[in-house]
Amino acid sequence: MIATIRKVYERYGFSPLETPALEYVDCLGKFLPEADQPDAGIFAFRDEDDAWVALRYDLTAPLSRYVAMNPDLPRPFRRYQVGPVYRLEKPGPGRFREFYQFDFDSVGTNSMLADAECCMVMCDALEALGIERGDYVVRLNDRKVLNGVLETIRSDGAIENRTAQDVLLTIDKLDRIGIDGVTQLLGEGRKDESGDFTRGCRLSPGQIDVVTKYLMAEGATRAKLCDALEKLVGESEVGRAGVDELRQIDAALASAGYDEDRALIDPTVVRGLGYYTGPVYEGVLTFAVVDQDGVAREFGSVFGGGRYDDLVERFTGHKVPATGASIGVDRLLAALKTLGKVDTPATTAAVLVTRLDKNLTGEYQRMVAELRGSDLNAELYVGNQSIKKQFKYASDTNKIVAIVAGSDEMGAGEVSIKDLRLGVELSKEVGADRKRWLESQPAQFKTKRENLVACVKEVLARYGGPSRNPA
Amino acid sequence: MIATIRKVYERYGFSPLETPALEYVDCLGKFLPEADQPDAGIFAFRDEDDAWVALRYDLTAPLSRYVAMNPDLPRPFRRYQVGPVYRLEKPGPGRFREFYQFDFDSVGTNSMLADAECCMVMCDALEALGIERGDYVVRLNDRKVLNGVLETIRSDGAIENRTAQDVLLTIDKLDRIGIDGVTQLLGEGRKDESGDFTRGCRLSPGQIDVVTKYLMAEGATRAKLCDALEKLVGESEVGRAGVDELRQIDAALASAGYDEDRALIDPTVVRGLGYYTGPVYEGVLTFAVVDQDGVAREFGSVFGGGRYDDLVERFTGHKVPATGASIGVDRLLAALKTLGKVDTPATTAAVLVTRLDKNLTGEYQRMVAELRGSDLNAELYVGNQSIKKQFKYASDTNKIVAIVAGSDEMGAGEVSIKDLRLGVELSKEVGADRKRWLESQPAQFKTKRENLVACVKEVLARYGGPSRNPA
Repeated sequence: MIATIRKVYERYGFSPLETPALEYVDCLGKFLPEADQPDAGIFAFRDEDDAWVALRYDLTAPLSRYVAMNPDLPRPFRRYQVGPVYRLEKPGPGRFREFYQFDFDSVGTNSMLADAECCMVMCDALEALGIERGDYVVRLNDRKVLNGVLETIRSDGAIENRTAQDVLLTIDKLDRIGIDGVTQLLGEGRKDESGDFTRGCRLSPGQIDVVTKYLMAEGATRAKLCDALEKLVGESEVGRAGVDELRQIDAALASAGYDEDRALIDPTVVRGLGYYTGPVYEGVLTFAVVDQDGVAREFGSVFGGGRYDDLVERFTGHKVPATGASIGVDRLLAALKTLGKVDTPATTAAVLVTRLDKNLTGEYQRMVAELRGSDLNAELYVGNQSIKKQFKYASDTNKIVAIVAGSDEMGAGEVSIKDLRLGVELSKEVGADRKRWLESQPAQFKTKRENLVACVKEVLARYGGPSRNPA
Repeated sequence: MIATIRKVYERYGFSPLETPALEYVDCLGKFLPEADQPDAGIFAFRDEDDAWVALRYDLTAPLSRYVAMNPDLPRPFRRYQVGPVYRLEKPGPGRFREFYQFDFDSVGTNSMLADAECCMVMCDALEALGIERGDYVVRLNDRKVLNGVLETIRSDGAIENRTAQDVLLTIDKLDRIGIDGVTQLLGEGRKDESGDFTRGCRLSPGQIDVVTKYLMAEGATRAKLCDALEKLVGESEVGRAGVDELRQIDAALASAGYDEDRALIDPTVVRGLGYYTGPVYEGVLTFAVVDQDGVAREFGSVFGGGRYDDLVERFTGHKVPATGASIGVDRLLAALKTLGKVDTPATTAAVLVTRLDKNLTGEYQRMVAELRGSDLNAELYVGNQSIKKQFKYASDTNKIVAIVAGSDEMGAGEVSIKDLRLGVELSKEVGADRKRWLESQPAQFKTKRENLVACVKEVLARYGGPSRNPA
């Protein structure tokens, strides 16, 4: 999966970079949704010089630090990176405190072309993994539009920056609590099923109405939705800038042939992280899966990103516009497993050379060396158990062929080759032709020692050949 | 480099595994050389439940924890793993507090065949990376031999376990402080260049003499060195067991054709980590490099490992013998760079489609899509700079070809293709034939739009074709 995605990133000219898992806390910033609790959500501790060090919670903040420290990088600086990130929180089902992200970013350009490209890369990556068009969609929005909408209602009661942030985080919960929940949280507050009360943003009913209209905005095409949003932002300068950015992204997507079946504008997409400044996007798998409560629901977001024009400035004082996106590797892997699109082989070697007679180990070593020399992954049994347990080991580790040779066989210049799959195959219900074919394939046969490699390859060919080994 | 090593590990039937970077401190143990300072050398902190959590300092302790938690794994359990590990210490030159290890292990077998295999895998991996036979050697020893030697001198004054451990750590410093330094540290102590005094193991002169004899033991072959060691361990049971293990490894190496030019027995190899119980080995690069003080010295150890039969028992109470080895990835990479055996390309895309006229962006997008569709890594310039700066960007990012098309060219159904390397090539001193060849290759030429892909491939072919892109 990683290799496939890497290929797509490289197709677009992104190059690999690695940064350390540990950063000084100052360099990480506090851009997680829980921004008001210092150090909340991250693994932080003091190093031997008493400096605060933490495990990265994403790959974007470290990238910004890296760019700031290397001012001579070409601009745009286009890199990809894959690695674990860490969040100190109780993870939900199927989520972990250590998980993999796989990012690509363009740093040093304010062109919306770079944002459009993020959406295209997401589409290409998902399709390269075998997810069919229609089973996924990229949902796209611009935070400036929401800010514009909030500006229009500022006269109708003070909407401070603080409240604007709360509104954004409230909208980010739409998937979980639904539009009614969001409406309650935009007002006085909301009591959840457990009876816990969450204080709301305390907007007036008129203000809530405007935000709700924004969330419900619709259009048959991206262009028409932009028209609708333009009306909602009225004279707000930031709002109009946001709509203009969406129009530019729309145009770039359209001329590259990424139409509404692959990339939609969706006003409800805001993304929780605090550093996004303009366009935001997420790749969503739209097919239904049954969750742990037995309810069928959309698989959901596996890819997310956006523009963060102010993040590098934190380190340098110079504005360096940037945009990028990130895959949640573990979630995407779970999705691919659900779809049966990924195969995790239990073993890398298809051949086991057994050690029937420990005194013949030198001979067995020469056999396994010969197999390896012929481009086969082959394992020599290095345990001390009986031949029966060796066969069990071969089947437990998913081998296809076992080689057996005792002193009699060796004396006659022969070895035995055992097809470990054939028994399993024979036990399956098969048609007459297939049955005849199987019966013509001996499950174990002797051959001259010098034919070892050829015969092993012959048996492997019954099951797709040695190429079945992962690269 | 990682891919090459992975292939060797898989040839032997090792399969990939990943474990988290964070472990509970109890699971890591204290097997670093600084074992007497609890938590020294590791990044440890408390999680939200107040449990002590730490970053792994190697991949072996987490593997043992994993095996203990998964009792139904096939035995031997043979896995490889690559990933960062962390040590909280002032790193020496060329070393880091976060660095990569690349391990392979066989867990659940006490057969010396598994240890011999470790040595063979080391040799094969180094040769697969292009390091020639003679430029490396695997040095092999068994801790039980040293323990046996110490037993023989126990009657000549108490050699407690504690002292035995000190002797081992003293020998581990041989590379740095030389045999004289070791002799001093085996006795009363040693004053280093800075005048600091380190307290010694306080062995008697007679005891020191025996240990020195052991360190100086020689033999023309592995077998003959075993004979010499056998004399030194006398009647010690553990010592004789150690020599016997070395003989078994020698036999397995010999029958696989790994002779003294590749794998030596070296009594001075002890490896610092506290969990090794028997055979230990390291892969050493023997060619000279000039260090930061201008002194030529052996590049040194890039690979190390050994048997750790007691580590899994710590978690389960059941003895699970195990053995394995680990590459220091960063050091090996540095070695390969020194040898010119590794090439780190600055970029993954060889082609840049420039944007001379921003109004033609849609056309440029179609061009870049066509190139990508023809299996080329191609980048669309997504910045907002002039064409001159775009060419500088192309050269800064190591592109080979730039595509340029203004409205005139587009109107005539043409594009310009610029060979960015040709100028550089022309400036080099060349023979008459080569010069004529270069002159026949236009540095920039126009072609029909429909010939874009073919012409780009033609130019790339001048420099080894698109395959120059890393996979």
